[in-house]
Amino acid sequence: MADFRDIGLAAGVNILSALIFLIAFAILRLQPFNDRVYFPKWYLKGLRTSPTQSGAFANKFVNLDWRSYIRFLTWVPEALKMPEQELIDHAGLDSAVYLRIYLLGLKIFVPVTLLAWAILVPVNWTNNTLAQSADKLEFSNIDKLSISNIPLASQRFWTHVVMAYAFAVWTCYTLKKEYETVATMRLHFLASEKRRPDQFTVLVRNVPPDTDESVSECVEHFFLVNHPDHYLTHQVVINANKLAKLVKEKKSKQNWLDYYQIKYSRNPLQRPTRKTGFLGLCGDKVDAIEYQTAEIERLSKEIDEERERVKTDPKCIMPASFVSFKTRWAAAVCAQTQQSRNPTLWLTEWASEPRDIYWDNLAIPYVSLTVRRLIVAVSFFFLTFFFVIPVTAVQSLANIGSIEKKAPFLRPIVEVPFIKSFIEGVLPGIALKIFLIVLPTILMIMSKFEGYLSKSSLERRSALRYYLFNFINVFLVSVIAGSALEQLKNFSKLAPGDIPKTIGVAIPMKATFFITYVMIDGWAGVAGEILRLKPLIFFHLKNFFLVKTEKDREAAMDAGSIGFNTGEPQIQLYFLLGLVYAVVTPIFLPFILVFFALAFVVYRHQIINVYNQEYESAAAFWPAVHGRIMFALIFSQIVLIGLMSTKRAVTTTPFLIALPIMSYFFHLFCRGRFEPAFVNYPLQEAMMKDTLERAREPNLNLKGYLQNSYVHPVFKDEEEEEDDDHVNGKYDDNAVVATKRQSRRNTPAPSKMSGASSPSLPDVVPEI
Amino acid sequence: MADFRDIGLAAGVNILSALIFLIAFAILRLQPFNDRVYFPKWYLKGLRTSPTQSGAFANKFVNLDWRSYIRFLTWVPEALKMPEQELIDHAGLDSAVYLRIYLLGLKIFVPVTLLAWAILVPVNWTNNTLAQSADKLEFSNIDKLSISNIPLASQRFWTHVVMAYAFAVWTCYTLKKEYETVATMRLHFLASEKRRPDQFTVLVRNVPPDTDESVSECVEHFFLVNHPDHYLTHQVVINANKLAKLVKEKKSKQNWLDYYQIKYSRNPLQRPTRKTGFLGLCGDKVDAIEYQTAEIERLSKEIDEERERVKTDPKCIMPASFVSFKTRWAAAVCAQTQQSRNPTLWLTEWASEPRDIYWDNLAIPYVSLTVRRLIVAVSFFFLTFFFVIPVTAVQSLANIGSIEKKAPFLRPIVEVPFIKSFIEGVLPGIALKIFLIVLPTILMIMSKFEGYLSKSSLERRSALRYYLFNFINVFLVSVIAGSALEQLKNFSKLAPGDIPKTIGVAIPMKATFFITYVMIDGWAGVAGEILRLKPLIFFHLKNFFLVKTEKDREAAMDAGSIGFNTGEPQIQLYFLLGLVYAVVTPIFLPFILVFFALAFVVYRHQIINVYNQEYESAAAFWPAVHGRIMFALIFSQIVLIGLMSTKRAVTTTPFLIALPIMSYFFHLFCRGRFEPAFVNYPLQEAMMKDTLERAREPNLNLKGYLQNSYVHPVFKDEEEEEDDDHVNGKYDDNAVVATKRQSRRNTPAPSKMSGASSPSLPDVVPEI
Repeated sequence: MADFRDIGLAAGVNILSALIFLIAFAILRLQPFNDRVYFPKWYLKGLRTSPTQSGAFANKFVNLDWRSYIRFLTWVPEALKMPEQELIDHAGLDSAVYLRIYLLGLKIFVPVTLLAWAILVPVNWTNNTLAQSADKLEFSNIDKLSISNIPLASQRFWTHVVMAYAFAVWTCYTLKKEYETVATMRLHFLASEKRRPDQFTVLVRNVPPDTDESVSECVEHFFLVNHPDHYLTHQVVINANKLAKLVKEKKSKQNWLDYYQIKYSRNPLQRPTRKTGFLGLCGDKVDAIEYQTAEIERLSKEIDEERERVKTDPKCIMPASFVSFKTRWAAAVCAQTQQSRNPTLWLTEWASEPRDIYWDNLAIPYVSLTVRRLIVAVSFFFLTFFFVIPVTAVQSLANIGSIEKKAPFLRPIVEVPFIKSFIEGVLPGIALKIFLIVLPTILMIMSKFEGYLSKSSLERRSALRYYLFNFINVFLVSVIAGSALEQLKNFSKLAPGDIPKTIGVAIPMKATFFITYVMIDGWAGVAGEILRLKPLIFFHLKNFFLVKTEKDREAAMDAGSIGFNTGEPQIQLYFLLGLVYAVVTPIFLPFILVFFALAFVVYRHQIINVYNQEYESAAAFWPAVHGRIMFALIFSQIVLIGLMSTKRAVTTTPFLIALPIMSYFFHLFCRGRFEPAFVNYPLQEAMMKDTLERAREPNLNLKGYLQNSYVHPVFKDEEEEEDDDHVNGKYDDNAVVATKRQSRRNTPAPSKMSGASSPSLPDVVPEI
Repeated sequence: MADFRDIGLAAGVNILSALIFLIAFAILRLQPFNDRVYFPKWYLKGLRTSPTQSGAFANKFVNLDWRSYIRFLTWVPEALKMPEQELIDHAGLDSAVYLRIYLLGLKIFVPVTLLAWAILVPVNWTNNTLAQSADKLEFSNIDKLSISNIPLASQRFWTHVVMAYAFAVWTCYTLKKEYETVATMRLHFLASEKRRPDQFTVLVRNVPPDTDESVSECVEHFFLVNHPDHYLTHQVVINANKLAKLVKEKKSKQNWLDYYQIKYSRNPLQRPTRKTGFLGLCGDKVDAIEYQTAEIERLSKEIDEERERVKTDPKCIMPASFVSFKTRWAAAVCAQTQQSRNPTLWLTEWASEPRDIYWDNLAIPYVSLTVRRLIVAVSFFFLTFFFVIPVTAVQSLANIGSIEKKAPFLRPIVEVPFIKSFIEGVLPGIALKIFLIVLPTILMIMSKFEGYLSKSSLERRSALRYYLFNFINVFLVSVIAGSALEQLKNFSKLAPGDIPKTIGVAIPMKATFFITYVMIDGWAGVAGEILRLKPLIFFHLKNFFLVKTEKDREAAMDAGSIGFNTGEPQIQLYFLLGLVYAVVTPIFLPFILVFFALAFVVYRHQIINVYNQEYESAAAFWPAVHGRIMFALIFSQIVLIGLMSTKRAVTTTPFLIALPIMSYFFHLFCRGRFEPAFVNYPLQEAMMKDTLERAREPNLNLKGYLQNSYVHPVFKDEEEEEDDDHVNGKYDDNAVVATKRQSRRNTPAPSKMSGASSPSLPDVVPEI
């Protein structure tokens, strides 16, 4: 069992690596040639130009000002300085509210930690149960501070019960206040937003087929009849998935062409060649530039044909449509009501903003949705319970005893105290982490298959699955050794009452493991996030091989986004750990606090300087965040009951049983009280905004404004693409390197990065 | 263990009692003086007058026509003759759809029974496992026909798996078709209805308090702002609970006065007296007529005062209001949308029709609802698990062995074969039934406390609780001996996987018990329902003691209603039993079939001739009915898995596990596909009806029509009450008996019975 010393070592390693990451970041971020890696958000907003316009050549690439290196932590106060309202304007409400999750962690756990250390730690410490039973089982100093040190049937357990109540009350109070704040922020945000097409627009799906009318006519007639005073216009949804694929293919070929051209320009003696077969690995050797040019030409032709076909072929018109209304009020009404007798036809829902829409799924018919859900549910079950086989294989390797048994020749190395501690303390965490990197992609594919219509809902759904996966495969599997599959078997043989007991008993014993996990994943991991190693390398590779124009350089900049689908479940795991260990092993809490504080600063910095959100859902994710923290709270209470029941503290049980029941009803109350604010658009708000707008702009041409707002992005990209070609042609003769650092003050706000799959702003017009 | 002989005896007893009930009914219904007991529906509709206007005096009371007695079963074809559409017009959609539940039972179980007897019974019968192991445990002939007769690990179990699939597919197919039909019927009913106030009206609750404006002004302003083109008028809700109580008290005193007056008129020599104290049992002796007259006067004064106070006191005005709109479309919009930023204010929902509203609950604030739900949930839990103590006490009495042990002197009586069979076969069922009679009232009080706003939703909620109670305390407790509390203890010690096993193993052994139960509760009970013994007695008592005028006689007629809150859970128990035993003990099925057929005929007769529904919810209960049958289906499948796992038929398990999963997703599909039709009013429908009406009646004064439709019934009653007093005064000198059989062709359609708590028709005006 790991001891203070092991933990100290692990802490040392992790603090050291965190420090290395931070120092590396401090140095790298000051280098001008990394500016676009560490401050892309400002470039995308058009508020930052390439840093040094004048000065020595070296100054353009390396920062030689030694004074700036001394203040290597200045980014921390800078990150904290920006007020929240400004942050919302700068990065959107989603990002600002996302940061509040970390803040919520601090709000909950700072008082909990203080209380636990003031009361629980002394109560636990002043026993010597473990010392007396030392001959029976080994214990570490950490256990001396935990509930394990209290003798059976002691009256001291009442302290833990009272603390459980105190923590629950405080957590619920904080959660309620936070829910209230976020709901107000959301409504305020929606109210203060400027005009956006999605405020007037409703997505209608499952338009019934009609033999006499086209989809477009059918939609128009239906809404003219049923919303006669309010209907304005509509845009049918076109199945342009094939076209989008062709465009993507062309882009990739274009990249290759650029690569070969730059290669050729650097070494004009040898024309680059490539093979025509699979991945360029086999087949005939041809001149690469000519080949790619021909390919691009072929694709351009195909794209033009497909574009024509898509626009005219009625088969490409989906039974779905974006219907726009004259007022926000009417759109809110249409989105919240049932249109037709048959509730599976004319399904209306609030349209997401254009850049949030996941176009590929608009074509899925209603009947297949249930089947898709079934398939995804079953495959998620199998994923969850069979994915772990490799994880446990590695984890069992991390067991010193088994290593020595299987590979006796390693014994001399493994027995070195430092290496032993390293293997025991660090390796299991890392092994787990590596396996978890593949997962989000699979989960996202599942969500896409399930048929969600917006990127934000796809991310929310993936986040839920990722959390469940983490809960079972990280938390439960680590608490009770053995794979999830074995546990499923064991639990199905256990009585329902014994499951919390089994988990409860194991919880205090695993404290050290989770402390290590928090340090690796939470400390070093978060510090690593700020370094952005992957985008750093990729940017420089792209910059070297592909970039010819400013536009290309902008495209090479991978700002990334928060990644709600992976980030939020990770935070939730810390909430779970914190709540579970708050009563049982209070020494755990400071480690969680460090994580929340560090992550808050780091992500605030990243959100201000780096991330560029693809969409804005106005904090639609908060009900899920709140729900999962409530789940963690109730789970921690049930586990505590299980643990207490083994401590012969039977008299405390009735008091503890009331706790999860009351927590659950608190959750129901919160859901009823706040959740509608995240689902519906209240008519009062809509009416208010309509009235204001009518007073301010009585002659607004809304129809013109909405006409093309929901065009499939591939058509917009196409236009831009063609413009790009012209630009490329024009600048082709110019020196590539010379344009590299040209001022980009005129960069339009919309990001070209996200434009690949969706336009950043609805009313973007092709620039000439 | 009960044998064929016991079952035969029980069947004999029950068929005999059912026959006695039916013959008694056939005789009693032909007597003119029972006409109002057996045909009240027709009186209430004003379509039937007192039967014999001419003829001998005896003919008025007794039917002397011997030929009519021969055809004593003619009511059966009569009950079946009325086509469904006519039935809907006659008794409402609720009643017609309620009958379809029985029909659904026949539709599901007739093919299932045929298939089971054609395939499963021969497969089971042609083994002799039980005969071989006869020395080990006793078995009855019934078990020879059940799954118990198949040897362990036999390949014959595949038949049962295939049959389980066949039954599931057939049940799901029938359920889906039925859901479709009912949804269509509901929409058609709503579309073809004539104008009703609830089509235009929305109930608004939780109007926020305003210091400057009264509730009425506040509501008016809010809806004028947020629904400017559609708002028509509104009626605030007045807390008249105290007034209603006073009126009720006055009515009871009036009854007593009538009673004493009739008593005095029959025996003018002695003025009746009564005591003033508690229930007239203690205190001073006074002249009863004078005393009651004084009391009535006092109450009348109090009522007048209270009425004035209620109308003027702002404290009596609740923060709720019925808001009416100019069109059905606008009402549908308002009911389905969220009005205010704060989702707990301005809560809108479709107003129930005026007679369906449960006025007492309109005053409950939103915040207390969660607490009320918590309290009810906890008390329902305790009710479910502690109510059974008396039941088990009686059931253990019904055990011959324990009777002999506790009261050895009874042995000679108990050992008589007939008595023994009676005790074993009939008593446990009766004991259970008696205990269940008290329950619905308690459950209804719970639902009322929970804050539901309409009688229909109160009944639906109570039905759910009653079903849960039945499931745990009738089904599970009977399957596994011991009280629910013991079972809770046992189950919490069992592994989740072992619970279906435990139940599954016990199922085949309890077949005989449930067969007896079906015969008592389902055969004799249903036959007893048609006799209407309680209303028969009460009507004649009231007729003798209280009735002075035709109006009184009408009031004495207790038509009753379907009683969804008790009736539906009872049918659901039969669905559960049928589905559980279909594969395991197919011999069970014919008993269920007899129940469904008999109940269908009996209830069709009652609905046509007797019951007078208090409200019309347009079959809003169907999603609950569907859901519970699905629950029974999935439960039966899980239990079958449990049973199979003990038969060493392991290879069948994977095939069986897929069954409940697929059933569940079928349920999800049905819910998504049909349930919205029972919750929302589609805009398309509303618009269609609006357009039609506008074309037909362009000059309709809707405001006048809606003005007073949602007045608290106590105000309407009051007016009628006063009219009654005048009438009474006028007719006081006339001979009381002479008016008894006057023609009532002019009885207005609305029932005075239901008028006590709610007016039958919204636009009823006090008759002079």
